[in-house]
Amino acid sequence: MAVGSVSAGPDAVEEDVVGDARRFDVVGIGNAIVDVIAHVDHDFLEAEGLVPGSMTLVEEAEAARLYAAMPPAVETSGGSAANTIAGVASLGGRVAYVGKVRDDQLGDVFRHDIQAVGVQYTTAPATSGPSTARCLVLVTPDAERTMRTFLGVSTSLGVAEIDPDALASTAIVYAEGYLWDAEDAKTAIRTAMETARRAGARVAFTLSDTFCVERHRSEWLGLLDEHVDVVFANEGELCSLFEVDDVEEALRRVTVHTDLACVTRSAAGSTLLHADGRRVDVPAWSTGTVLDTTGAGDLYAAGVLRGLTSGVDLRTAGWLGSVAAGECVSHTGPRPQTRLADLVARVPVPLDRPPVV
Amino acid sequence: MAVGSVSAGPDAVEEDVVGDARRFDVVGIGNAIVDVIAHVDHDFLEAEGLVPGSMTLVEEAEAARLYAAMPPAVETSGGSAANTIAGVASLGGRVAYVGKVRDDQLGDVFRHDIQAVGVQYTTAPATSGPSTARCLVLVTPDAERTMRTFLGVSTSLGVAEIDPDALASTAIVYAEGYLWDAEDAKTAIRTAMETARRAGARVAFTLSDTFCVERHRSEWLGLLDEHVDVVFANEGELCSLFEVDDVEEALRRVTVHTDLACVTRSAAGSTLLHADGRRVDVPAWSTGTVLDTTGAGDLYAAGVLRGLTSGVDLRTAGWLGSVAAGECVSHTGPRPQTRLADLVARVPVPLDRPPVV
Repeated sequence: MAVGSVSAGPDAVEEDVVGDARRFDVVGIGNAIVDVIAHVDHDFLEAEGLVPGSMTLVEEAEAARLYAAMPPAVETSGGSAANTIAGVASLGGRVAYVGKVRDDQLGDVFRHDIQAVGVQYTTAPATSGPSTARCLVLVTPDAERTMRTFLGVSTSLGVAEIDPDALASTAIVYAEGYLWDAEDAKTAIRTAMETARRAGARVAFTLSDTFCVERHRSEWLGLLDEHVDVVFANEGELCSLFEVDDVEEALRRVTVHTDLACVTRSAAGSTLLHADGRRVDVPAWSTGTVLDTTGAGDLYAAGVLRGLTSGVDLRTAGWLGSVAAGECVSHTGPRPQTRLADLVARVPVPLDRPPVV
Repeated sequence: MAVGSVSAGPDAVEEDVVGDARRFDVVGIGNAIVDVIAHVDHDFLEAEGLVPGSMTLVEEAEAARLYAAMPPAVETSGGSAANTIAGVASLGGRVAYVGKVRDDQLGDVFRHDIQAVGVQYTTAPATSGPSTARCLVLVTPDAERTMRTFLGVSTSLGVAEIDPDALASTAIVYAEGYLWDAEDAKTAIRTAMETARRAGARVAFTLSDTFCVERHRSEWLGLLDEHVDVVFANEGELCSLFEVDDVEEALRRVTVHTDLACVTRSAAGSTLLHADGRRVDVPAWSTGTVLDTTGAGDLYAAGVLRGLTSGVDLRTAGWLGSVAAGECVSHTGPRPQTRLADLVARVPVPLDRPPVV
């Protein structure tokens, strides 16, 4: 079954009456995080011993120490899958999100921001335990972001908190690899993937981060085989998964494990490769400004997921990803600052080959 | 005594040893507030019955209701005097801030952001009572901001919390008119002004908001007479203070009550008028981008205060205000996003009159 033409599933007859086969295009599951973003120079990273571009988990005390050393910051909702789901909503998709915050002020901020963009978000906040997750994002003048994440209460997401009705009525369920760093959340996601698949949904998964891939490589290869239809990764993550240096070699291998691989290649755009042999290489798109790459991969996934659930071809799906990512990097913060549905309507899909003149 | 040449005061002999007559250039006192900023269209303001450009105080329940109706937002430290003090710090001045937050997450954000820019901020957070103050800032496409403020714990600032040592060792104490909406804070500010003056400091005050002026007009005229050396206002606020329509008439009247008036005139720049008859009209300055006017008046005051405490002439002080305000309106949020000391070094003061060619 091609991903772009999701079947209506067993309950289609009734739901077709209201014109939609399923309630949701995408249900996302992830660590619910508020980003704390500051612009720094490379000297700051060096003084702190931080590897540019890395994402590292930290305990609350280390997060507090680094925060105290950081310049003034702005707070904005983040979380990889949450950014993606907010992006799909901004592109006009029908979406829901599952992720855990606490009943604290940053939890309120997270809830407000995702609901305000039209996402169904009903996960109950924790009333005790660690605080809402925070990601300290240090953006350098080259627009690269280096992240230190305190996962807080987000790791306590349990199986019971993932609404089976939502999973049974979505075209795609989308989960982030970052969840694998928490045992409870990991179990919850596996269960969710199984539930969704039984109901006829497709499963999409992002590899999230090269260090994440290293920690979970063998488990994830099994996961792709058993559960995942669509995988998102950047070149480094994909190469790490197969422990190869050549991205073409990694691309050849990945579609043995999954139907569709969507691989971002920074300024070179992205490659979408289907197990049936179809391949498209899609250019990047830019507003002309590249200020902060935080969320660029998340928003690329948003564009592709919106494309896959609206029946367009792979090339167009990839292009939606390029445009959503291009908007994202043009400003500080990982969530869209313009209505992406309006933006993509103004940016035509480029032709497959340059026109002959 | 000219404002620009602050006397060293009685303790000057010892302090001159380290090269500075006083520990601080400016100590600011204000409502410590976190801004919650969203971009909306005018239809949103109309649907909510909000007057464009207004600042209105609201209770927590109304703040929560409006927040729920708002689009996704970003959180950033605000507060009028706090923005000004952060600006003076960014311009290289030595500054302290007094204002009350709670021991909650937004209070932590406020504390971090003001300390991270080099401001001495030691006011102890409240451990009970209302939460940290929030200002819901709705920015329209014309860059105008409309504000709804929940003052929370900020109004509980007491006399005991204003460090008399800081007041005794600053060149200028700067207070915001917004404080007059809380009885405790008002008393604290009057006491602070008296303490500072006795120690030889000058007192600066901003009228803050036309509605604020209306609420406190007669009290403020007495305050200017008794306590205030430098007043900041925009044209509307100054006219409201004297209940006149003509800003020139208001300018003539204000220097009867205070030594120096610094009046912002939007795109027309500002006028600085001294009681001794000196007057300068200073043009506005722009990066070319006007995105969000939140904090523009606060940053104008920062530039002028930095000028007044570094011995430059009135024209240069006003120009520092123009540049600081121009940077402020070029981005979302009221705090500087570049080091203003570097920026002003690149932007020469324009000549008083156009050169003859």
